[in-house]
Amino acid sequence: MKITRRSEFSASHVCANPGWTPERNREVYGVTSNPNGHGHNYILDVTVEGTPDPLTGMVMDLKRLKEIINEEVVDPMDHRFLNREVPPFDRVIPTTENIAREVWRRLEPRLNTANTRLHALRLYETEDLFVEYSGEAAE
Amino acid sequence: MKITRRSEFSASHVCANPGWTPERNREVYGVTSNPNGHGHNYILDVTVEGTPDPLTGMVMDLKRLKEIINEEVVDPMDHRFLNREVPPFDRVIPTTENIAREVWRRLEPRLNTANTRLHALRLYETEDLFVEYSGEAAE
Amino acid sequence: MKITRRSEFSASHVCANPGWTPERNREVYGVTSNPNGHGHNYILDVTVEGTPDPLTGMVMDLKRLKEIINEEVVDPMDHRFLNREVPPFDRVIPTTENIAREVWRRLEPRLNTANTRLHALRLYETEDLFVEYSGEAAE
Amino acid sequence: MKITRRSEFSASHVCANPGWTPERNREVYGVTSNPNGHGHNYILDVTVEGTPDPLTGMVMDLKRLKEIINEEVVDPMDHRFLNREVPPFDRVIPTTENIAREVWRRLEPRLNTANTRLHALRLYETEDLFVEYSGEAAE
Amino acid sequence: MKITRRSEFSASHVCANPGWTPERNREVYGVTSNPNGHGHNYILDVTVEGTPDPLTGMVMDLKRLKEIINEEVVDPMDHRFLNREVPPFDRVIPTTENIAREVWRRLEPRLNTANTRLHALRLYETEDLFVEYSGEAAE
Amino acid sequence: MKITRRSEFSASHVCANPGWTPERNREVYGVTSNPNGHGHNYILDVTVEGTPDPLTGMVMDLKRLKEIINEEVVDPMDHRFLNREVPPFDRVIPTTENIAREVWRRLEPRLNTANTRLHALRLYETEDLFVEYSGEAAE
Repeated sequence: MKITRRSEFSASHVCANPGWTPERNREVYGVTSNPNGHGHNYILDVTVEGTPDPLTGMVMDLKRLKEIINEEVVDPMDHRFLNREVPPFDRVIPTTENIAREVWRRLEPRLNTANTRLHALRLYETEDLFVEYSGEAAE
Repeated sequence: MKITRRSEFSASHVCANPGWTPERNREVYGVTSNPNGHGHNYILDVTVEGTPDPLTGMVMDLKRLKEIINEEVVDPMDHRFLNREVPPFDRVIPTTENIAREVWRRLEPRLNTANTRLHALRLYETEDLFVEYSGEAAE
Repeated sequence: MKITRRSEFSASHVCANPGWTPERNREVYGVTSNPNGHGHNYILDVTVEGTPDPLTGMVMDLKRLKEIINEEVVDPMDHRFLNREVPPFDRVIPTTENIAREVWRRLEPRLNTANTRLHALRLYETEDLFVEYSGEAAE
Repeated sequence: MKITRRSEFSASHVCANPGWTPERNREVYGVTSNPNGHGHNYILDVTVEGTPDPLTGMVMDLKRLKEIINEEVVDPMDHRFLNREVPPFDRVIPTTENIAREVWRRLEPRLNTANTRLHALRLYETEDLFVEYSGEAAE
Repeated sequence: MKITRRSEFSASHVCANPGWTPERNREVYGVTSNPNGHGHNYILDVTVEGTPDPLTGMVMDLKRLKEIINEEVVDPMDHRFLNREVPPFDRVIPTTENIAREVWRRLEPRLNTANTRLHALRLYETEDLFVEYSGEAAE
Repeated sequence: MKITRRSEFSASHVCANPGWTPERNREVYGVTSNPNGHGHNYILDVTVEGTPDPLTGMVMDLKRLKEIINEEVVDPMDHRFLNREVPPFDRVIPTTENIAREVWRRLEPRLNTANTRLHALRLYETEDLFVEYSGEAAE
C-alpha cells in the first residue's frame, strides 16, 4: 500500500553552470540561466510505502508525515532563492532533477522506518513538467 | 496497455478504534475521530490492464467498466455514512487505506477476466492525499 | 481591486426538512436526505474588495485574511457533522445556499473595515456545483 | 460577450518597502520580504468584451489576442526577477495587486479598439490566491 | 444567490465562412478552418439566479437543472459534428461565441421561471479559452 | 530519474470497424461510432528516463523534448480528423489505445538515445479516462 501527500513551496532558482560563459549557459539552459533568478510554485508529491497497521488501519500517521516534509523541505526551501540560500544549491545546479535528488536525500532517513519506506517523489516545476525519482538503487 | 477510469463519490466516515478511549483515538486519528463523522468527495481511479482486442482496438468496453464500478462502489457508497451503512466498515475502520482494500476486494472478481486484470486503484481523500493499492500479492 | 483567497474544509451534512416525511424529503432532496449524513470537501473562495494601500501595495494583510477565515469558518466547520455540531445548522437546513449565507454572516463583520469590504463568496460542494453569494442587498 | 484567454509566466519578486527596516518589512510582508526573492508560476486570465462580428462569429482574432499578451506581458516578465529587470517594479512593490495594475496599463491601449474593450484581469499568484482588476474607473 | 452547475460534452466543429475561399478562411480562422473538423471536450457552466426557497433552502432542484441541461444541450450536442448534425450550425459558424449564444437560446425559456432566471453561461473550448454570455440585454 | 512533459492537441475521430454494420458498431462503440466524428482535447504526458548529465544536471534538453513531441505528434494531429487525415488511422481504428500505440511508434526512435529512453506515455481522452502504454515489451 502506498500513500502520497502533496505539498507546495514557492522558490526561485537559476540554472547555469558557473564554469561556463553566459552564452554557453544560455545555449544549454535557455531563459532559465538568467542570473537574477526566476521562480516557480513547486508541487511535491511524497509517496511512502508500507503495510497498514492492523490496529489503526493506517500506513503511517499523516500529521507526522506532513511535519517531516515541512521540516525537511517546505520550511527551508519555501520563499527562498535556492542557489543563494539553500545548500547544496550554492554548488549543485538546482534543476528539477537535482532538487528531487536533494529532497530524496533529506526525506529518506526520516521516512525509512521499521514499517515504512520512502517509495517515490514527484516534483512539478510547472503543471506541464515534472520529474519522478525513487533513489539511486532504482536507476 | 492500461486504461484508467475516474469516478467520484461523496461519503462520510469516522476513523476511530472502538476498543480505545476517545482520548487515545484523538491522539492517533486527530479530528477524524469525531464520532459524528465528517465527509469527503472521494475520487477513485480504477486501472485495468489488458491487450487491446485486435478487432475493436479496445482493452475493454468502457461503458461496461463504468457500470461495474457503479454497481460495486459508487452506488453502495455514495451519499452514505460508511461506518453505519456500508459493511464491512461497521467493524473495519474506514481509513483511506482500508476503503481502497475493500474497493479492490469488490472489483477484482469482476475485472479479472480472460482478457483483463485489475491492475491498480488510486483513491483520493482530498486533492492532496491519496493511496495506491495493487492487491496483497503486490506488497 | 478584488483579492480572493481559497480555503477548504471537509464536513458532512443532511439535507432534509424535519417537518416532512422521509418520503417527501427523498422526493425533494434525493440521496442527500439520508439521515446518517454524507460528506464533501467544501472549497470556499472569499473575495475582499478594497484599494491597495499606497505604502504597502496590498488590499489587506493576507495572513490576517487567512486567520479570519480559519477562525470563523474552517476551524468550527472542518471535520464536523454540520447538522449536529455547527449552529445554526441544527435548525437551518445546510444546503450549499444556506451554508454560504452563514459563512457570509460570520465573515462580513470581520472583513468590512475602513479599507475593505467582503465582496462575494463562492462555495463549491463538488467540482461541478457551486453557489455565489454577495449578501442580501445584492439580491 | 466576453472572451478570456489564459497565459502563464514564471517570475520571482520581493515584496518589501525600501524605505522600511527589514524588521518592519518582515512584519508587514512576512516571508515575501526575503531580499533574495522567491518565485511563482503566475497565471493570467485576460478578459476582452465585445460583440461577435456577424461575418466571423468572433469577438476578436484569438491568435492576435495571444500575440498581444505575449508581447506586453509574457515575453518581458517570464523568467525575470521583477524588481530588478521589469520596470516599474524597480520602484513599485510587485505585490500581486501592483502587477495586475501594470498588466492592465500595458494591455488596455492594445485591447481597447473600435470593437473590443479590456474588461477584466485575473492574476493568480498561487492556486489559492488571486486578484481581479478592471481598471481605476471600476473602483 | 447564484448556483452554477458544470457539464461536459465532446463535439467537433469547423470554423469557416462558406462564402469565403479556403485561403481567406485559413487567414481568419487558422487551423480551425480545416473542413474535416476537429474536436474539443467543451465544458459548460450554467449559472441560475434566484432566492432560496425558505422551506427547502434551495434556489432550484439541482436534479431538474441537470436534466434540463442534458435535454437541451448535452444530449443533442455530445459526440456530434456540430456543423453537420446540430442546427443552426449548418448555417451559423460554430465559434465558441456562437455556441454560447445557441446554448443561451435553448436554456433561457426553460430556466426563466417564477423563481429563477438564467444568469450567465461560461463555455470553455479548452482549459485556456472560454467565453461568458449573459444574453443580448446584457451587452 | 524520469521526466515528464505534458502536451495537448484537439482532434476528432470515429470509432467504428468498417467491416461491421452501423448497428454492430453502435453496440460495440456506442456514440463514438457516429460517422461524422466528434472531438476531444487530448492531453499527452510523455515520460523519458535517463540519468542526469553530471555537467548540466538534466536528463535531457527540455526544449528539444518539446520540439520532438510537436514534430511527431502535435503538429500532425492537432486540429485534424484522425480517421481521414492522419495515417494509419485511415485503416487503424483511433481508439485511445491505438492512438497511444501510434504515438509510441513515432516517439520511440527519437527518444531512445545513448542517454535516454522513452519510458511511458499517458494519453487522456477526457479528464476521467486515460491509457498508459510502455511499448510491446512491457506487456
